[in-house]
Amino acid sequence: MNAHEYAAANASRFLDQLKDLLRIPSVSTDPDRKADMQRAAEWLADDLRRIGMPRVEIMPTAGHPVVYAEWLGAGETAPTILVYGHYDVQPAEIEAGWTSDPFEPIERDGFVYARGSSDDKGQVFAHVKAAEALLANGGQPPVNLKLLIEGEEEIGSPNLSSFVDKHREMLKADVCVISDGGMASMDQPSIVYALRGLVGMELEVWGPAQDLHSGQYGGTVHNPVQALAEIVAALHNPDGSVSVPGFYNDVLSLSDEERAELDKTPFLEADWRRATGAPQPWGEAQFKLHERVGARPTLEINGMAGGFYGVGFKTVLPGKALAKISCRLVANQNPHHIYELIRDYVKLITPPTVRSELRLLQAGEAAFVDRHTPAMQAAITADEPGWGQPPVFAREGGSIPSVADFNHKLKLPVILMGFGLNDGGAHGPNEHFSVQLFQRGIQTAIFFYEAIAKQ
Amino acid sequence: MNAHEYAAANASRFLDQLKDLLRIPSVSTDPDRKADMQRAAEWLADDLRRIGMPRVEIMPTAGHPVVYAEWLGAGETAPTILVYGHYDVQPAEIEAGWTSDPFEPIERDGFVYARGSSDDKGQVFAHVKAAEALLANGGQPPVNLKLLIEGEEEIGSPNLSSFVDKHREMLKADVCVISDGGMASMDQPSIVYALRGLVGMELEVWGPAQDLHSGQYGGTVHNPVQALAEIVAALHNPDGSVSVPGFYNDVLSLSDEERAELDKTPFLEADWRRATGAPQPWGEAQFKLHERVGARPTLEINGMAGGFYGVGFKTVLPGKALAKISCRLVANQNPHHIYELIRDYVKLITPPTVRSELRLLQAGEAAFVDRHTPAMQAAITADEPGWGQPPVFAREGGSIPSVADFNHKLKLPVILMGFGLNDGGAHGPNEHFSVQLFQRGIQTAIFFYEAIAKQ
Repeated sequence: MNAHEYAAANASRFLDQLKDLLRIPSVSTDPDRKADMQRAAEWLADDLRRIGMPRVEIMPTAGHPVVYAEWLGAGETAPTILVYGHYDVQPAEIEAGWTSDPFEPIERDGFVYARGSSDDKGQVFAHVKAAEALLANGGQPPVNLKLLIEGEEEIGSPNLSSFVDKHREMLKADVCVISDGGMASMDQPSIVYALRGLVGMELEVWGPAQDLHSGQYGGTVHNPVQALAEIVAALHNPDGSVSVPGFYNDVLSLSDEERAELDKTPFLEADWRRATGAPQPWGEAQFKLHERVGARPTLEINGMAGGFYGVGFKTVLPGKALAKISCRLVANQNPHHIYELIRDYVKLITPPTVRSELRLLQAGEAAFVDRHTPAMQAAITADEPGWGQPPVFAREGGSIPSVADFNHKLKLPVILMGFGLNDGGAHGPNEHFSVQLFQRGIQTAIFFYEAIAKQ
Repeated sequence: MNAHEYAAANASRFLDQLKDLLRIPSVSTDPDRKADMQRAAEWLADDLRRIGMPRVEIMPTAGHPVVYAEWLGAGETAPTILVYGHYDVQPAEIEAGWTSDPFEPIERDGFVYARGSSDDKGQVFAHVKAAEALLANGGQPPVNLKLLIEGEEEIGSPNLSSFVDKHREMLKADVCVISDGGMASMDQPSIVYALRGLVGMELEVWGPAQDLHSGQYGGTVHNPVQALAEIVAALHNPDGSVSVPGFYNDVLSLSDEERAELDKTPFLEADWRRATGAPQPWGEAQFKLHERVGARPTLEINGMAGGFYGVGFKTVLPGKALAKISCRLVANQNPHHIYELIRDYVKLITPPTVRSELRLLQAGEAAFVDRHTPAMQAAITADEPGWGQPPVFAREGGSIPSVADFNHKLKLPVILMGFGLNDGGAHGPNEHFSVQLFQRGIQTAIFFYEAIAKQ
């Protein structure tokens, strides 16, 4: 039997294996889970060895280790695929609203419920099982395979960039594939070709040397919480656009063709209402909801604090206040330049009655993949037998820092081929993954490797 | 010897007694100090009995008890003075910057350092010792005396108003005197004739039903922290005045005579800079600093919080945000009406993309005492021999809720005769009280009772 038949015949064993992996609470942000992180890495390495990968290593980083495996038996003339995924998961506490233990997977209505089922254990494991199916019975994958499965994606991949720098030779490939995202619906595969970049900042405003008595000094001192509110309020125009001069200068506008493609998977207002619960949409009215999310940069206030905000009341005039601000950026915007524009603007609008400082915390570029490359054609080809129809193209509003690394440092076309569903509860309670999508995902991965080989 | 001579002869014993009282850590806000609160009340009641007050009671309230004492031996035709003060103190931890144990008084350069030395044990105890001097050696005070010393001033006197309601007959008097404030300098007595009222509120803004992923929804959802900042920023005009329509409608303007009186104790910019450390003054430029504090209402943001504001970074789009807002009000402004004006304005400027609610937490009226009453004349008369010169009149920016109660409910003229210094560290570390001012305070209290008797 061929790889596709093997995968179908072993579907229930593959699912049991995935459940074993999901039972390991590999929460990368939790220092108490360090042993579980190691256990998850070893579990994956063991399975990769068992399926016949000749080189499997648990490679240390300054944080959690990377699991790396490769099979280069297709030879130097065959293309090489780099699969990226992660074995770490978001925190999950049953009190947050889980209806069952987040680390004891259960099946209900065709879905496996567990933390990491969709993000990303289930999706990256589909590639491991695709490799197993191709290697089974002395089989030969048609492409060389490299798998890089990291343990720090949920904490912002702080060590991945230097890992890539250090192992450029080892990671050399022709195409990178990442399954760590969502599809529009069960039957509609989608390929994400744009992710947004990110600038993380914090803005501090202070005036008096310490908290003051509001009765003694109120009315003579510019309240730093008020001043911060005034600065923050001045960062947007009344129409929802960002008011920082130059903010949109480098944004590439959507072509009519791209707009039409994106319109195939609209972000309907009804869905928006269901997902957000907010009273009505906000933002740049000349752009559709999915365009605002996928194709426009934004400036978001992630948090703000100053003074007394507990239960009850305290008549303090606070000495300082802080806001956490981030921008999602689109392709062609430089995160450091954007930071500088905002920093200069904040300086300009800070009145002489207070002091302010905007500090850069994090910067990552947007990723943008050409939809007309051979690798993209292979992905389209693979989706048809995998799902019964060709994929739609989507822009995602989120950020995966590693994509920019693979894209820019390794000069690889990155194919974002998500097997999850957009409403899969990735970072919230009751995360779930469709059993059917897991199986179709394995088939699609095999089709994709085969399509790349044929090019 | 007369009362003045007796007070002078017993000065060092009085000071030792005050130190005993200061050793009791009667922190009203701390549930662990309940026994100390009782102990302080008993210590005062014991001393009041010892000096010869025929009626002394520790009267329960829903919170900490009131110490009440009276001597009515001057007879029905003589005036009756109600002395108000408090035996509770602010919290004090040595780590907050105290150079010595806050509850072990020490003398240094003519000052006693201890929590409560100035606010208010030292000041109210000056009246107790004035009564002792008048009663000593079978003496007869020239006025009837009632002392109400409460234990909840530092937590906003939550039970005083109902205590006053319940005991209107008992508290009947001709004048109320409160020594719980500061003087401009060691040699310049001042009488406060205006205190500001207070409205405490909280403003909540929410939009989405829960926190959202900023990458997936940013740009389509009106961020509640941003919306709150926009609303808060809209509460002031660029010139520092409050923008809420009608806010200043009921404010009485200062007469030229009152302005001239207030100008005698100016709030100098140099002092302002030293006290605040802020870069430059802010507020209504057409009013002097001391006028902004004493004679103008203000709107202050006491605190604000929403989203993530810890160390590091989280790309959340927060579901809600909260601000604590208070107004200091001047005479003739109704706190409930001011709350309604702000509530209606906030409603008006809240955009349809979020929801908001302004909740009332606390409301107290301003106090304003006619400077031309006989009681005020008696206070002026008493200050001259007490301090060597007549008092200046001052408006204070703070609020003492009880003053409005005595003023409005008991229809009493309230004389605010502070014996502390304005920079006495009342609510901060290293609170201190001048030994000389303590002694002069006792003499002034006696002069005041005598002056009232002569009217």
